Amino acid sequence: MADKTKLLETFPNPNPERDYVIIHTAPEFTSLCPKTGQPDFATIILEYIPDKICVELKSYKFYLQSFRNDGIFFEAVTNKILDDLAKVCKPRYMKITAKFNTRGGISSEIIAEQNRKKLKKKFV
Amino acid sequence: MADKTKLLETFPNPNPERDYVIIHTAPEFTSLCPKTGQPDFATIILEYIPDKICVELKSYKFYLQSFRNDGIFFEAVTNKILDDLAKVCKPRYMKITAKFNTRGGISSEIIAEQNRKKLKKKFV
Amino acid sequence: MADKTKLLETFPNPNPERDYVIIHTAPEFTSLCPKTGQPDFATIILEYIPDKICVELKSYKFYLQSFRNDGIFFEAVTNKILDDLAKVCKPRYMKITAKFNTRGGISSEIIAEQNRKKLKKKFV
Amino acid sequence: MADKTKLLETFPNPNPERDYVIIHTAPEFTSLCPKTGQPDFATIILEYIPDKICVELKSYKFYLQSFRNDGIFFEAVTNKILDDLAKVCKPRYMKITAKFNTRGGISSEIIAEQNRKKLKKKFV
Amino acid sequence: MADKTKLLETFPNPNPERDYVIIHTAPEFTSLCPKTGQPDFATIILEYIPDKICVELKSYKFYLQSFRNDGIFFEAVTNKILDDLAKVCKPRYMKITAKFNTRGGISSEIIAEQNRKKLKKKFV
Amino acid sequence: MADKTKLLETFPNPNPERDYVIIHTAPEFTSLCPKTGQPDFATIILEYIPDKICVELKSYKFYLQSFRNDGIFFEAVTNKILDDLAKVCKPRYMKITAKFNTRGGISSEIIAEQNRKKLKKKFV
Amino acid sequence: MADKTKLLETFPNPNPERDYVIIHTAPEFTSLCPKTGQPDFATIILEYIPDKICVELKSYKFYLQSFRNDGIFFEAVTNKILDDLAKVCKPRYMKITAKFNTRGGISSEIIAEQNRKKLKKKFV
Amino acid sequence: MADKTKLLETFPNPNPERDYVIIHTAPEFTSLCPKTGQPDFATIILEYIPDKICVELKSYKFYLQSFRNDGIFFEAVTNKILDDLAKVCKPRYMKITAKFNTRGGISSEIIAEQNRKKLKKKFV
Amino acid sequence: MADKTKLLETFPNPNPERDYVIIHTAPEFTSLCPKTGQPDFATIILEYIPDKICVELKSYKFYLQSFRNDGIFFEAVTNKILDDLAKVCKPRYMKITAKFNTRGGISSEIIAEQNRKKLKKKFV
Amino acid sequence: MADKTKLLETFPNPNPERDYVIIHTAPEFTSLCPKTGQPDFATIILEYIPDKICVELKSYKFYLQSFRNDGIFFEAVTNKILDDLAKVCKPRYMKITAKFNTRGGISSEIIAEQNRKKLKKKFV
Repeated sequence: MADKTKLLETFPNPNPERDYVIIHTAPEFTSLCPKTGQPDFATIILEYIPDKICVELKSYKFYLQSFRNDGIFFEAVTNKILDDLAKVCKPRYMKITAKFNTRGGISSEIIAEQNRKKLKKKFV
Repeated sequence: MADKTKLLETFPNPNPERDYVIIHTAPEFTSLCPKTGQPDFATIILEYIPDKICVELKSYKFYLQSFRNDGIFFEAVTNKILDDLAKVCKPRYMKITAKFNTRGGISSEIIAEQNRKKLKKKFV
Repeated sequence: MADKTKLLETFPNPNPERDYVIIHTAPEFTSLCPKTGQPDFATIILEYIPDKICVELKSYKFYLQSFRNDGIFFEAVTNKILDDLAKVCKPRYMKITAKFNTRGGISSEIIAEQNRKKLKKKFV
Repeated sequence: MADKTKLLETFPNPNPERDYVIIHTAPEFTSLCPKTGQPDFATIILEYIPDKICVELKSYKFYLQSFRNDGIFFEAVTNKILDDLAKVCKPRYMKITAKFNTRGGISSEIIAEQNRKKLKKKFV
Repeated sequence: MADKTKLLETFPNPNPERDYVIIHTAPEFTSLCPKTGQPDFATIILEYIPDKICVELKSYKFYLQSFRNDGIFFEAVTNKILDDLAKVCKPRYMKITAKFNTRGGISSEIIAEQNRKKLKKKFV
Repeated sequence: MADKTKLLETFPNPNPERDYVIIHTAPEFTSLCPKTGQPDFATIILEYIPDKICVELKSYKFYLQSFRNDGIFFEAVTNKILDDLAKVCKPRYMKITAKFNTRGGISSEIIAEQNRKKLKKKFV
Repeated sequence: MADKTKLLETFPNPNPERDYVIIHTAPEFTSLCPKTGQPDFATIILEYIPDKICVELKSYKFYLQSFRNDGIFFEAVTNKILDDLAKVCKPRYMKITAKFNTRGGISSEIIAEQNRKKLKKKFV
Repeated sequence: MADKTKLLETFPNPNPERDYVIIHTAPEFTSLCPKTGQPDFATIILEYIPDKICVELKSYKFYLQSFRNDGIFFEAVTNKILDDLAKVCKPRYMKITAKFNTRGGISSEIIAEQNRKKLKKKFV
Repeated sequence: MADKTKLLETFPNPNPERDYVIIHTAPEFTSLCPKTGQPDFATIILEYIPDKICVELKSYKFYLQSFRNDGIFFEAVTNKILDDLAKVCKPRYMKITAKFNTRGGISSEIIAEQNRKKLKKKFV
Repeated sequence: MADKTKLLETFPNPNPERDYVIIHTAPEFTSLCPKTGQPDFATIILEYIPDKICVELKSYKFYLQSFRNDGIFFEAVTNKILDDLAKVCKPRYMKITAKFNTRGGISSEIIAEQNRKKLKKKFV
């Protein structure tokens, strides 16, 4: 899969001296099932504490849209979004929750996070 | 950006001997996106434990309205409101939660706080 | 498909001199998709005004259970239940509403009725 | 089945010169299934416009309790209650709605009424 | 039963030239069962279009309280309240809905009205 | 009672060539009981189709506030608000619904309207 | 006020041979009060049956945003939006419902429509 | 745009002698905006009374998925789905309701139907 | 006030070897205000762990009804019910919660208990 | 009262090496009042942690039905169900909650449990 991190634009964290939380909820994520080619639908929740860099919202939207015609497993796409965003933002803490629509009578939720141990307080 | 703290009027905390919580919820906040110039809409929730000074409610409304035609990122405006109010009120504890309406299919929430460590009890 | 009407037991309508309504709601119906062999799930609502004959409830339950391993379209099963019950009961009025669970991201509802024109009063 | 109408006490309608509606809702009805001997449970809703006679509430309760150990079909008991009450009260209008609890995964509702055509106004 | 209409005070309808609706909902009505002496409890809803006279609210409360120690059937008390109020107010239209608490596992509702035919428009 | 219509400011209906509906809902109305001097609380709903004149919202608020220390019956105040607004606005249609909080265990609702017959279409 | 209709782009109705309904709900409308200069907030609901022309959604968004710094009454802005859209689209039927947030403790709703009489069937 | 009707498979209506209703609700529809190339999301509700032909559910799902990378206006896609299905099924009655997710702060709903006049009874 | 404890019948606790909880909720309590003579209404919740004696339910109902025409303050009646029941039952633990209906816009709740310290475990 | 424990069938706990909770909720319990002979109705909630033996569900239903014509106090029947089940199952922990329908305007709840002290963790 191509390097999608180039799609992610950033801007300097306007308040790096403070730990604060940013939450972006995107209910319109869609990709394809790698086995059947059928479309999958999910809500992607991004929560993070920025360090020096914030992700720009419009570029994040385009980044999520770039999966539209990719065949990729639930587990893989959730971790890839976390990896890509963490690589670009180098956050103090980051978490991705992906809630997939029902397929074959079963709905799925994948949760991945990074740097929880570095968290100074229970915040998220 | 101009110094908006002059817009904020205050009055002496009538009960400084006691730790108590003040919550103001403002669902009609609007500013402009610094990239596209499009209007953004948010609900701003201010929670604080006053020390010697309280913020006057009407002046706080005018302060929030002063962002109406400013281009500013979600993250920056949330931290700026916290900084301005903290500078004027010097509170024992203060927290801003900004819940932004959906943009490009994504809704966002920014949470910033100050002085949590000084809190004597779990209060907020 | 085998003649399932033999499964339906009946008893004489105890009050044939009166038009009255019987409603049975069965939320545990399941059959198989004739194309994929996957199980389908539905709620079957039977409403009728009996003439000389009522359907016995336990046999109706066994009748519905008999579709468990049949491959049959939503449209066909709804009409077949109506046809079988109408053939056995010869009701003054009868209606079947079948609400099928989501399949491939699509939920379905099929509604069929018989003898509405003969209804003397607006009852159902 | 024994003549249960003897259980029903009545009193003269205190206002026969006026059409008015009486509704009694009895959620604790229980009888036995005539096929299995298992207990059935139902809510019985009686609505009527009295003519010269009203049914006394306590005797109506005892009348409903008298079915406690009778084996009787849903359809028969609903119509019998309507017949017995109509025989004793000779009402201007009367309706029985019987909502039976789930049996074998199926819930049932039986609705019977009398004298709708005689209703001078749409009241019920 | 004593003439309770003396308890009802009135005042001239301030706007007799206009058809308008007055609704009073009294959830604390209590009287006694004429057979057992046990207390009954009800909510009394009065709806009327005044002609020349309105019922005064506090006196109406005292009027309702006067049934506190009277033994009277549900049906009779509902009609009596309608009769007493109609006699005193001579309204263009009046309706009483009495919702009685559960007795012997049965809850009851009595609805009576007066002068519906005289209503010039569908208002209530 | 003083002439309160002087409190009501107006502005010309910007679109008199069209029938359209204006609804103002004021949940903070308070007046005094003329018998006991106790405060009453109500929600006042104004619905109207303007002709040549609209009522200005802020002056309407002050008009409603002017009843704060007046002793006045529910029925009278509802009709007075309708009369005052109709006198000032001369609307094509107007309706006042006043929902009063519980007093002495009784809650009340008064509904009055004007010019329903003149309505060209069913609108309100 | 400047002619805002220039902001509205259109495209040919792709199916003019059929009567069908288009509904756009815009919960982020904001303008200024012409008396106090304070911001007002509303949800604007547009419902119409197109004839030859449809309004393009993005330009409609910009059109609504153009009121951001205009001082204009609730009643005037509702009618102006209807007039501007009807002038540009010449629809078979059109309706605007504007629900304004609470001001001074009073919430308001303005409803205006055009060409109801021409409607061939009850559709909206 | 290519002829998508070839994607729609059908099967003979198992009960053409009867008027009955089929409802399919598909919440995972997505296409592209023809102006910006951005993805749109909608729920598509299909209601119809079949004549000789029913649409097969899985092929209908693939038909809806075929719009995934098409640029097409809300109004056009709603009418096209109705046209394509009506061309293939020649139904006695058919209706499409398309509910689109928020775009630019505005949510949209398009409703189109066919053959309402031919309906023998009020069914849908 | 007369000794009402004579109204309370009891029966031996069928399981004194076990600590268990009995809760009786009586929503139809009514007494009179000792100052105005006006009726008060309350829900009385009795919770207790019996020792050797249980209170019989019907006699408890008559006991509560005996306050119907007594003038007694909220606080007094709550404590008196606790005292009377405790005197008769000598329970291991007992608690009375009395929730009085709104009077003058204020609702009241009185809570009294006995023997909490003797409780061996946190049970109630 | 006869020994009802013979009605209770059991089966070996399939996972005795683990503490886990079983909850059965039976909303159709009915017995008779020992004083008046009137029927009582209750919901019986059984919660237990099995040791070596589980109670078989159908036999538990017949066991509960066996009280249908027994006269027994609320307190006694609740404790008897607990005793019988505990005798047969010898559970690690067991609790019965019996919620009785309103009688004489009073609803009752009886809660009894066994072996709470032996519970290794707070589980139920």
